[in-house]
Amino acid sequence: MQLRDAITTRRMVRRFDAEREVAGEVLQRIVELGPRAPSAGFSQGWDFVVLRGTERDAFWAASTDGGAPDAWLRGVSSAPVLIVCCSDRGAYLDRYAEPDKPWPDRSESHWPAPYWDVDTGMAAMLMLLGAVDEGLGALFFGVPVERLTAVREALAIPQDRGVVGVIALGYAESVAPSGSTRKVRRRPLSEVVHAGRFGDPWH
Amino acid sequence: MQLRDAITTRRMVRRFDAEREVAGEVLQRIVELGPRAPSAGFSQGWDFVVLRGTERDAFWAASTDGGAPDAWLRGVSSAPVLIVCCSDRGAYLDRYAEPDKPWPDRSESHWPAPYWDVDTGMAAMLMLLGAVDEGLGALFFGVPVERLTAVREALAIPQDRGVVGVIALGYAESVAPSGSTRKVRRRPLSEVVHAGRFGDPWH
Repeated sequence: MQLRDAITTRRMVRRFDAEREVAGEVLQRIVELGPRAPSAGFSQGWDFVVLRGTERDAFWAASTDGGAPDAWLRGVSSAPVLIVCCSDRGAYLDRYAEPDKPWPDRSESHWPAPYWDVDTGMAAMLMLLGAVDEGLGALFFGVPVERLTAVREALAIPQDRGVVGVIALGYAESVAPSGSTRKVRRRPLSEVVHAGRFGDPWH
Repeated sequence: MQLRDAITTRRMVRRFDAEREVAGEVLQRIVELGPRAPSAGFSQGWDFVVLRGTERDAFWAASTDGGAPDAWLRGVSSAPVLIVCCSDRGAYLDRYAEPDKPWPDRSESHWPAPYWDVDTGMAAMLMLLGAVDEGLGALFFGVPVERLTAVREALAIPQDRGVVGVIALGYAESVAPSGSTRKVRRRPLSEVVHAGRFGDPWH
Protein backbone atom coordinates (compact mmCIF):
# COMPACT_ATOMS: atom_id res chain seq x y z
CA MET A 1 0.00 0.00 0.00
CA GLN A 2 1.15 3.50 -0.76
CA LEU A 3 2.30 5.49 2.28
CA ARG A 4 -0.08 8.36 1.60
CA ASP A 5 -3.06 6.02 1.19
CA ALA A 6 -2.27 4.26 4.46
CA ILE A 7 -2.04 7.57 6.33
CA THR A 8 -5.15 9.17 4.83
CA THR A 9 -7.43 6.13 5.00
CA ARG A 10 -6.47 5.10 8.56
CA ARG A 11 -9.34 5.33 11.01
CA MET A 12 -9.69 4.14 14.57
CA VAL A 13 -11.70 0.91 14.63
CA ARG A 14 -13.70 0.11 17.76
CA ARG A 15 -15.40 -3.19 16.84
CA PHE A 16 -13.65 -6.26 15.53
CA ASP A 17 -14.56 -9.59 14.01
CA ALA A 18 -13.86 -11.77 17.05
CA GLU A 19 -13.97 -14.96 14.95
CA ARG A 20 -11.21 -13.90 12.60
CA GLU A 21 -7.71 -14.45 13.94
CA VAL A 22 -4.68 -12.45 12.86
CA ALA A 23 -2.19 -14.79 11.22
CA GLY A 24 1.19 -15.01 12.89
CA GLU A 25 3.10 -13.75 9.86
CA VAL A 26 0.77 -10.76 9.54
CA LEU A 27 1.30 -9.88 13.20
CA GLN A 28 5.02 -10.31 12.77
CA ARG A 29 5.10 -7.82 9.89
CA ILE A 30 3.21 -5.29 12.02
CA VAL A 31 5.22 -5.55 15.22
CA GLU A 32 8.55 -5.36 13.43
CA LEU A 33 7.63 -1.88 12.19
CA GLY A 34 7.38 -0.42 15.71
CA PRO A 35 11.09 -0.37 16.52
CA ARG A 36 11.71 1.45 13.22
CA ALA A 37 10.58 4.66 14.90
CA PRO A 38 13.23 7.21 15.74
CA SER A 39 14.29 7.63 19.37
CA ALA A 40 16.35 10.28 21.13
CA GLY A 41 19.96 9.14 21.23
CA PHE A 42 18.71 5.88 19.71
CA SER A 43 17.66 5.04 23.27
CA GLN A 44 14.91 2.70 22.03
CA GLY A 45 13.26 2.87 25.43
CA TRP A 46 10.18 0.95 24.42
CA ASP A 47 8.71 -2.51 24.91
CA PHE A 48 5.67 -4.08 23.33
CA VAL A 49 3.74 -6.84 25.08
CA VAL A 50 1.68 -8.79 22.55
CA LEU A 51 -1.41 -10.57 23.90
CA ARG A 52 -3.36 -13.15 21.90
CA GLY A 53 -6.19 -15.50 22.76
CA THR A 54 -6.46 -16.16 26.47
CA GLU A 55 -3.40 -14.01 27.12
CA ARG A 56 -5.76 -11.05 26.78
CA ASP A 57 -7.82 -12.14 29.80
CA ALA A 58 -5.28 -10.98 32.37
CA PHE A 59 -5.15 -7.57 30.72
CA TRP A 60 -8.91 -7.09 30.65
CA ALA A 61 -9.32 -8.35 34.21
CA ALA A 62 -6.70 -5.91 35.46
CA SER A 63 -7.77 -2.92 33.39
CA THR A 64 -11.51 -2.98 34.10
CA ASP A 65 -13.57 -2.94 37.28
CA GLY A 66 -15.35 -6.21 36.64
CA GLY A 67 -18.76 -4.63 36.19
CA ALA A 68 -21.01 -5.16 33.17
CA PRO A 69 -19.07 -4.18 30.06
CA ASP A 70 -20.21 -1.03 28.31
CA ALA A 71 -20.48 -0.68 24.52
CA TRP A 72 -16.90 0.54 24.24
CA LEU A 73 -15.51 -2.45 26.12
CA ARG A 74 -17.69 -4.96 24.27
CA GLY A 75 -16.34 -3.57 21.01
CA VAL A 76 -12.67 -3.31 21.91
CA SER A 77 -12.50 -6.62 23.78
CA SER A 78 -13.51 -8.33 20.52
CA ALA A 79 -10.04 -7.55 19.17
CA PRO A 80 -8.06 -10.80 18.87
CA VAL A 81 -4.72 -9.08 19.51
CA LEU A 82 -3.58 -6.45 21.98
CA ILE A 83 -0.18 -4.76 21.92
CA VAL A 84 0.66 -3.01 25.20
CA CYS A 85 3.11 -0.19 24.43
CA CYS A 86 5.49 0.53 27.32
CA SER A 87 8.01 3.35 27.70
CA ASP A 88 11.27 3.12 29.60
CA ARG A 89 12.31 6.50 30.98
CA GLY A 90 15.35 4.96 32.65
CA ALA A 91 16.75 3.87 29.29
CA TYR A 92 16.76 7.51 28.18
CA LEU A 93 18.32 8.81 31.38
CA ASP A 94 20.98 6.07 31.13
CA ARG A 95 21.69 6.77 27.46
CA TYR A 96 22.17 10.49 28.06
CA ALA A 97 24.50 9.80 30.98
CA GLU A 98 26.92 8.03 28.63
CA PRO A 99 30.25 9.71 27.74
CA ASP A 100 29.06 11.04 24.35
CA LYS A 101 25.97 12.61 25.92
CA PRO A 102 25.66 15.65 28.21
CA TRP A 103 23.77 14.60 31.35
CA PRO A 104 25.69 12.31 33.72
CA ASP A 105 23.38 13.26 36.60
CA ARG A 106 20.45 11.37 35.02
CA SER A 107 18.11 14.24 35.91
CA GLU A 108 14.78 14.33 34.13
CA SER A 109 14.81 18.14 34.34
CA HIS A 110 17.05 18.38 31.27
CA TRP A 111 14.38 16.99 28.98
CA PRO A 112 12.16 19.43 27.08
CA ALA A 113 9.58 16.69 26.49
CA PRO A 114 9.13 13.11 27.74
CA TYR A 115 10.75 11.48 24.72
CA TRP A 116 10.31 8.03 26.27
CA ASP A 117 6.53 8.51 25.82
CA VAL A 118 6.79 10.48 22.56
CA ASP A 119 9.05 7.92 20.87
CA THR A 120 6.91 5.01 22.07
CA GLY A 121 3.94 6.84 20.57
CA MET A 122 5.82 7.15 17.28
CA ALA A 123 6.45 3.41 17.35
CA ALA A 124 2.74 2.79 17.99
CA MET A 125 1.95 5.08 15.06
CA LEU A 126 4.05 2.89 12.77
CA MET A 127 2.25 -0.26 13.94
CA LEU A 128 -1.13 1.45 13.40
CA LEU A 129 -0.06 2.16 9.82
CA GLY A 130 1.21 -1.38 9.47
CA ALA A 131 -2.26 -2.60 10.45
CA VAL A 132 -3.81 -0.57 7.63
CA ASP A 133 -1.22 -1.97 5.24
CA GLU A 134 -2.31 -5.50 6.20
CA GLY A 135 -6.02 -4.76 5.81
CA LEU A 136 -6.59 -4.77 9.56
CA GLY A 137 -8.30 -2.30 11.84
CA ALA A 138 -6.78 -0.94 15.01
CA LEU A 139 -7.49 1.26 17.97
CA PHE A 140 -5.01 3.03 20.23
CA PHE A 141 -6.36 3.52 23.75
CA GLY A 142 -5.13 4.38 27.20
CA VAL A 143 -5.31 2.34 30.39
CA PRO A 144 -7.22 4.09 33.18
CA VAL A 145 -4.66 5.63 35.50
CA GLU A 146 -6.13 3.85 38.54
CA ARG A 147 -5.57 0.49 36.75
CA LEU A 148 -1.97 1.03 35.70
CA THR A 149 -0.43 -0.73 38.68
CA ALA A 150 -2.72 -3.75 38.29
CA VAL A 151 -2.01 -3.99 34.57
CA ARG A 152 1.72 -3.87 35.17
CA GLU A 153 1.42 -6.60 37.78
CA ALA A 154 -0.78 -8.79 35.58
CA LEU A 155 1.68 -8.64 32.67
CA ALA A 156 4.92 -8.57 34.70
CA ILE A 157 5.70 -5.11 33.38
CA PRO A 158 8.24 -3.44 35.69
CA GLN A 159 6.56 -0.75 37.78
CA ASP A 160 8.94 1.92 36.49
CA ARG A 161 7.67 1.56 32.92
CA GLY A 162 5.07 3.84 31.46
CA VAL A 163 2.07 2.27 29.80
CA VAL A 164 1.64 4.76 26.97
CA GLY A 165 -1.29 2.96 25.44
CA VAL A 166 -2.60 -0.24 23.97
CA ILE A 167 -3.17 -1.15 20.33
CA ALA A 168 -6.26 -3.33 19.77
CA LEU A 169 -5.82 -5.15 16.50
CA GLY A 170 -8.04 -7.30 14.32
CA TYR A 171 -10.29 -7.33 11.31
CA ALA A 172 -12.81 -4.52 11.51
CA GLU A 173 -16.51 -5.22 11.80
CA SER A 174 -18.12 -3.96 8.62
CA VAL A 175 -19.89 -1.09 10.39
CA ALA A 176 -17.55 0.62 12.82
CA PRO A 177 -19.44 3.19 14.88
CA SER A 178 -17.66 6.20 16.24
CA GLY A 179 -16.60 6.01 19.86
CA SER A 180 -18.26 9.28 20.70
CA THR A 181 -21.76 10.64 20.26
CA ARG A 182 -20.31 14.10 19.83
CA LYS A 183 -18.96 14.87 16.39
CA VAL A 184 -15.73 16.83 16.53
CA ARG A 185 -14.61 18.54 13.35
CA ARG A 186 -11.13 18.17 12.01
CA ARG A 187 -9.26 21.41 12.60
CA PRO A 188 -8.50 23.00 9.21
CA LEU A 189 -4.89 23.06 8.09
CA SER A 190 -4.94 26.85 8.11
CA GLU A 191 -5.54 26.73 11.84
CA VAL A 192 -3.12 23.93 12.72
CA VAL A 193 -0.18 25.01 10.58
CA HIS A 194 1.39 28.40 11.11
CA ALA A 195 3.72 30.16 8.69
CA GLY A 196 6.78 31.86 10.13
CA ARG A 197 5.32 32.45 13.57
CA PHE A 198 2.48 31.15 15.68
CA GLY A 199 -0.78 32.78 14.67
CA ASP A 200 0.23 33.61 11.10
CA PRO A 201 -1.96 31.25 9.10
CA TRP A 202 -0.67 28.80 6.57
CA HIS A 203 -1.83 29.68 3.09
CA MET B 1 6.24 4.99 -2.18
CA GLN B 2 5.14 1.86 -0.42
CA LEU B 3 4.43 2.30 3.30
CA ARG B 4 6.82 -0.42 4.34
CA ASP B 5 9.65 1.00 2.22
CA ALA B 6 9.16 4.48 3.67
CA ILE B 7 9.28 3.13 7.22
CA THR B 8 12.26 0.82 6.76
CA THR B 9 14.42 3.18 4.70
CA ARG B 10 13.82 6.27 6.86
CA ARG B 11 16.94 7.55 8.57
CA MET B 12 17.64 10.71 10.49
CA VAL B 13 19.54 13.14 8.25
CA ARG B 14 21.82 15.68 9.91
CA ARG B 15 23.30 17.55 6.93
CA PHE B 16 21.28 19.15 4.17
CA ASP B 17 21.90 20.73 0.79
CA ALA B 18 21.45 24.36 1.80
CA GLU B 19 21.21 25.46 -1.84
CA ARG B 20 18.25 23.29 -2.67
CA GLU B 21 14.89 24.69 -1.62
CA VAL B 22 11.84 22.60 -0.81
CA ALA B 23 9.08 23.45 -3.29
CA GLY B 24 5.90 24.81 -1.78
CA GLU B 25 3.73 21.98 -3.09
CA VAL B 26 6.12 19.40 -1.67
CA LEU B 27 6.05 21.07 1.73
CA GLN B 28 2.27 21.28 1.53
CA ARG B 29 1.98 17.53 0.93
CA ILE B 30 4.19 16.86 3.96
CA VAL B 31 2.53 19.18 6.46
CA GLU B 32 -0.97 18.03 5.58
CA LEU B 33 -0.04 14.52 6.75
CA GLY B 34 0.67 15.63 10.33
CA PRO B 35 -2.94 16.23 11.39
CA ARG B 36 -3.84 12.77 10.10
CA ALA B 37 -2.41 11.33 13.31
CA PRO B 38 -4.87 10.00 15.86
CA SER B 39 -5.49 12.02 19.01
CA ALA B 40 -7.23 11.19 22.28
CA GLY B 41 -10.86 12.28 22.01
CA PHE B 42 -9.90 13.77 18.64
CA SER B 43 -8.50 16.64 20.71
CA GLN B 44 -6.00 17.54 17.98
CA GLY B 45 -3.98 19.51 20.50
CA TRP B 46 -1.09 20.22 18.17
CA ASP B 47 0.26 23.15 16.18
CA PHE B 48 3.05 23.23 13.64
CA VAL B 49 5.04 26.38 12.99
CA VAL B 50 6.74 26.20 9.60
CA LEU B 51 9.88 28.30 9.15
CA ARG B 52 11.48 28.95 5.78
CA GLY B 53 14.31 31.19 4.63
CA THR B 54 14.97 34.06 7.00
CA GLU B 55 12.07 32.94 9.21
CA ARG B 56 14.49 30.35 10.57
CA ASP B 57 16.84 33.02 11.95
CA ALA B 58 14.65 33.86 14.93
CA PHE B 59 14.48 30.18 15.85
CA TRP B 60 18.21 29.62 15.70
CA ALA B 61 18.97 32.85 17.57
CA ALA B 62 16.59 31.87 20.37
CA SER B 63 17.55 28.20 20.56
CA THR B 64 21.35 28.55 20.65
CA ASP B 65 23.74 30.46 22.87
CA GLY B 66 25.33 32.51 20.10
CA GLY B 67 28.73 30.85 20.40
CA ALA B 68 30.59 29.25 17.52
CA PRO B 69 28.35 26.58 15.98
CA ASP B 70 29.42 23.00 16.53
CA ALA B 71 29.28 20.32 13.84
CA TRP B 72 25.73 19.34 14.78
CA LEU B 73 24.44 22.89 14.46
CA ARG B 74 26.33 23.55 11.22
CA GLY B 75 24.66 20.49 9.76
CA VAL B 76 21.13 21.00 11.01
CA SER B 77 21.05 24.74 10.36
CA SER B 78 21.62 23.96 6.67
CA ALA B 79 18.04 22.62 6.51
CA PRO B 80 15.94 25.02 4.42
CA VAL B 81 12.75 24.25 6.38
CA LEU B 82 11.99 23.83 10.08
CA ILE B 83 8.68 22.64 11.49
CA VAL B 84 8.28 23.39 15.20
CA CYS B 85 5.86 20.84 16.66
CA CYS B 86 3.85 22.21 19.58
CA SER B 87 1.51 20.39 21.95
CA ASP B 88 -1.54 21.91 23.62
CA ARG B 89 -2.28 20.22 26.93
CA GLY B 90 -5.17 22.59 27.56
CA ALA B 91 -6.99 21.34 24.45
CA TYR B 92 -6.97 17.82 25.94
CA LEU B 93 -8.11 18.95 29.37
CA ASP B 94 -10.89 20.98 27.73
CA ARG B 95 -11.98 18.15 25.45
CA TYR B 96 -12.23 15.67 28.33
CA ALA B 97 -14.25 18.14 30.39
CA GLU B 98 -17.00 18.12 27.73
CA PRO B 99 -20.33 16.38 28.49
CA ASP B 100 -19.46 13.15 26.61
CA LYS B 101 -16.16 12.83 28.48
CA PRO B 102 -15.48 11.94 32.11
CA TRP B 103 -13.29 14.66 33.62
CA PRO B 104 -15.03 18.02 34.19
CA ASP B 105 -12.38 19.02 36.74
CA ARG B 106 -9.71 19.37 34.01
CA SER B 107 -7.20 17.63 36.26
CA GLU B 108 -4.07 16.28 34.61
CA SER B 109 -3.93 13.49 37.18
CA HIS B 110 -6.49 11.44 35.24
CA TRP B 111 -4.14 10.95 32.31
CA PRO B 112 -2.04 7.77 32.17
CA ALA B 113 0.34 9.40 29.70
CA PRO B 114 0.79 12.94 28.32
CA TYR B 115 -1.21 12.34 25.16
CA TRP B 116 -0.74 15.97 24.09
CA ASP B 117 2.96 15.17 23.65
CA VAL B 118 2.42 11.59 22.44
CA ASP B 119 -0.11 12.56 19.77
CA THR B 120 2.04 15.47 18.59
CA GLY B 121 4.90 12.99 18.29
CA MET B 122 2.67 10.73 16.19
CA ALA B 123 1.91 13.69 13.92
CA ALA B 124 5.62 14.42 13.61
CA MET B 125 6.19 10.77 12.74
CA LEU B 126 3.76 11.07 9.83
CA MET B 127 5.55 14.16 8.53
CA LEU B 128 8.91 12.38 8.83
CA LEU B 129 7.48 9.58 6.68
CA GLY B 130 6.05 12.15 4.28
CA ALA B 131 9.55 13.57 3.88
CA VAL B 132 10.86 10.15 2.86
CA ASP B 133 7.97 9.82 0.41
CA GLU B 134 9.01 13.09 -1.22
CA GLY B 135 12.68 12.15 -1.46
CA LEU B 136 13.68 14.50 1.33
CA GLY B 137 15.72 13.98 4.45
CA ALA B 138 14.60 15.02 7.91
CA LEU B 139 15.73 15.17 11.50
CA PHE B 140 13.59 15.36 14.62
CA PHE B 141 15.34 17.15 17.46
CA GLY B 142 14.53 18.74 20.78
CA VAL B 143 14.98 22.34 21.89
CA PRO B 144 17.27 22.70 24.93
CA VAL B 145 15.04 23.08 27.95
CA GLU B 146 16.74 26.33 28.98
CA ARG B 147 15.87 27.80 25.55
CA LEU B 148 12.20 26.88 25.48
CA THR B 149 10.92 30.20 26.81
CA ALA B 150 13.03 32.18 24.35
CA VAL B 151 11.92 30.02 21.42
CA ARG B 152 8.28 30.45 22.37
CA GLU B 153 8.76 34.21 22.59
CA ALA B 154 10.61 34.40 19.27
CA LEU B 155 7.86 32.52 17.43
CA ALA B 156 4.86 33.91 19.36
CA ILE B 157 4.09 30.42 20.65
CA PRO B 158 1.89 30.70 23.77
CA GLN B 159 3.91 29.91 26.89
CA ASP B 160 1.50 27.11 27.84
CA ARG B 161 2.35 25.08 24.76
CA GLY B 162 4.85 22.27 24.81
CA VAL B 163 7.59 22.32 22.21
CA VAL B 164 7.80 18.59 21.59
CA GLY B 165 10.47 18.86 18.95
CA VAL B 166 11.49 20.35 15.65
CA ILE B 167 11.61 18.71 12.23
CA ALA B 168 14.52 19.90 10.08
CA LEU B 169 13.67 19.24 6.47
CA GLY B 170 15.54 19.40 3.21
CA TYR B 171 17.43 17.44 0.64
CA ALA B 172 20.06 15.31 2.31
CA GLU B 173 23.73 15.85 1.68
CA SER B 174 25.00 12.80 -0.11
CA VAL B 175 27.09 11.64 2.82
CA ALA B 176 25.16 11.98 6.05
CA PRO B 177 27.36 11.21 9.04
CA SER B 178 25.87 9.87 12.20
CA GLY B 179 25.26 12.34 14.98
CA SER B 180 27.10 10.27 17.51
CA THR B 181 30.56 8.79 17.65
CA ARG B 182 29.21 5.93 19.71
CA LYS B 183 27.51 3.20 17.74
CA VAL B 184 24.39 1.92 19.43
CA ARG B 185 22.99 -1.38 18.20
CA ARG B 186 19.37 -1.78 17.33
CA ARG B 187 17.71 -3.85 20.03
CA PRO B 188 16.65 -7.19 18.54
CA LEU B 189 12.94 -7.80 18.11
CA SER B 190 13.14 -10.71 20.55
CA GLU B 191 14.16 -8.26 23.25
CA VAL B 192 11.73 -5.46 22.41
CA VAL B 193 8.62 -7.54 21.78
CA HIS B 194 7.24 -9.75 24.53
CA ALA B 195 4.73 -12.55 24.04
CA GLY B 196 1.91 -12.80 26.57
CA ARG B 197 3.77 -11.12 29.40
CA PHE B 198 6.78 -8.91 29.87
CA GLY B 199 9.96 -10.95 29.77
CA ASP B 200 8.59 -13.79 27.69
CA PRO B 201 10.46 -13.35 24.42
CA TRP B 202 8.81 -13.02 21.08
CA HIS B 203 9.58 -15.99 18.87
